[in-house]
Amino acid sequence: MPVTIEDINAAYLRIRPHIHRTPVMRSESLDKMADCKLFFKCENLQKAGAFKSRGAVNAVFSIPHQQLSKGVATHSSGNHGAALARAANLRDIPAYIVVPTSAKQVKKEAIRAYGAEIIECEATLQARESTLAQVVRDTGARVVHPYDDDLVIAGQGTTALEFLDQVSELDSLVVPVGGGGLLAGTAILAYPATAVYGAEPESADDAYRSFQSGERVKSHVPNTICDGLLTTLGERNFEVISEMVSEILLVSEEEIIGAMLLLWTRLKQVVEPSSAVTLAAVLRNRALFAGLRVGLVLTGGNVDPGNLPFKPAI
Amino acid sequence: MPVTIEDINAAYLRIRPHIHRTPVMRSESLDKMADCKLFFKCENLQKAGAFKSRGAVNAVFSIPHQQLSKGVATHSSGNHGAALARAANLRDIPAYIVVPTSAKQVKKEAIRAYGAEIIECEATLQARESTLAQVVRDTGARVVHPYDDDLVIAGQGTTALEFLDQVSELDSLVVPVGGGGLLAGTAILAYPATAVYGAEPESADDAYRSFQSGERVKSHVPNTICDGLLTTLGERNFEVISEMVSEILLVSEEEIIGAMLLLWTRLKQVVEPSSAVTLAAVLRNRALFAGLRVGLVLTGGNVDPGNLPFKPAI
Repeated sequence: MPVTIEDINAAYLRIRPHIHRTPVMRSESLDKMADCKLFFKCENLQKAGAFKSRGAVNAVFSIPHQQLSKGVATHSSGNHGAALARAANLRDIPAYIVVPTSAKQVKKEAIRAYGAEIIECEATLQARESTLAQVVRDTGARVVHPYDDDLVIAGQGTTALEFLDQVSELDSLVVPVGGGGLLAGTAILAYPATAVYGAEPESADDAYRSFQSGERVKSHVPNTICDGLLTTLGERNFEVISEMVSEILLVSEEEIIGAMLLLWTRLKQVVEPSSAVTLAAVLRNRALFAGLRVGLVLTGGNVDPGNLPFKPAI
Repeated sequence: MPVTIEDINAAYLRIRPHIHRTPVMRSESLDKMADCKLFFKCENLQKAGAFKSRGAVNAVFSIPHQQLSKGVATHSSGNHGAALARAANLRDIPAYIVVPTSAKQVKKEAIRAYGAEIIECEATLQARESTLAQVVRDTGARVVHPYDDDLVIAGQGTTALEFLDQVSELDSLVVPVGGGGLLAGTAILAYPATAVYGAEPESADDAYRSFQSGERVKSHVPNTICDGLLTTLGERNFEVISEMVSEILLVSEEEIIGAMLLLWTRLKQVVEPSSAVTLAAVLRNRALFAGLRVGLVLTGGNVDPGNLPFKPAI
């Protein structure tokens, strides 16, 4: 049974006590630059620093307690891992997080800070999945997949639910696409009243290629600064996205870094590179959004301030 | 006539259409670390990226138009300059900003972006004042001093007015002290119901020494990462602060950088070093604030993300 608007409404009631209602920010100078009205949903200010807390809390609080006694497990490059660790901590159960060795130090630290156990593996989807299978055999933990999971998709969909409640008459919503949980949840909630776009790095373009060809790309070798978008589009998300999303917009690494710098200097928000693909996409496709009211989700703010892609101003 | 609470109330009504009512943020992890309840007033999200917009707008909108036909002028290491440039722009008059050669590139760019003229000078108080005097002789512009000015002090006091309206029963307010406009305005508004503290870098400690000795230190050679706190405590601010401020708390450069990193990673806010002295002061003086409700003003967010004092996490 595919996820419905009712599932998203139910998820919102379930997770509401455990997450932040994040603010929406605006900037006159960015509006001028983009030639439209931009609304930024600040999920960088969400619990555990990313929208991933929504899906993780919804999954952990939906599953009956007896099925959770051995804990939960997942693979994650960081934000879903930290979010699941936090959600498990709230229910007082163990969490086991499979993390690629390439994951950022700050993200690993966040996972540990919530009391989860980290298991490192190679940075391929295959290694992540086989390591996770081994962890499940060893511990009996319940897997909460980072994006190919109905409870997680419904949880991520609450971002759009909250956003549309805060800002009336949005013409378009633009969200980053990695595994596609947020994009699918957003589309289920907002389509067809609001046009929904995915934004994706050119150098991790499996969702774009899947969307264009009508056939899901199952294996690819992404290489982008957006450490949150290294995953491969999930099966059930592909189906939703094919039907309900208007377009997947590609952006270059340079455009992502430029947009990230704008978010830092104009909105004064610490956001990670994955959060910047949406603004980059709007700036690259000015004609598509000219004069419209456009909602962008700033997906997360977990970044190492000592290791940034910016050059000095002089 | 010293500035009164009524002046601050009047300033608020005057500037309200031209400034943001900035949000107050919280963080569970920082509360735990500090052993008290912290409330952060986000003036980094203020127009022109700093609380300075309050004082500048109040001054420019208080002065009769015929006195402003030749424009306004000031000296500033950056934020007051940008704020005054913006305020002048709103009233459609020229602005001349004397800026020390040491000022950050991003701050100079902000001043230019609001259409003001920049005049560079040496980075001493004497050079700044003599250059400004020359500019006034040349242009006939009206000087709006960055902190030793009643209209500016009343404007900065609106930060505390708004803060106390947003958060009930604050026990203490902690604000950075450079020239002392914000600290004096805060004290006039909040004292004696709320205890008011100044926070200052050890390596720019003229306010501390003035406060301790009862005699204003007029010349000193500050050397701190806090480019917003290089000024010398103003005459009228010294009098207010001597009477109404509980204590000036000193912090080291290392403590400032550590607190700044915490604000970036926990609050996800881009703040400049001057904004971090308050959190540094609270963390250094845990016993003084234990269990209390403490308000801190994050004064500004104008920083070059390509030139930060942080080391990589690994």
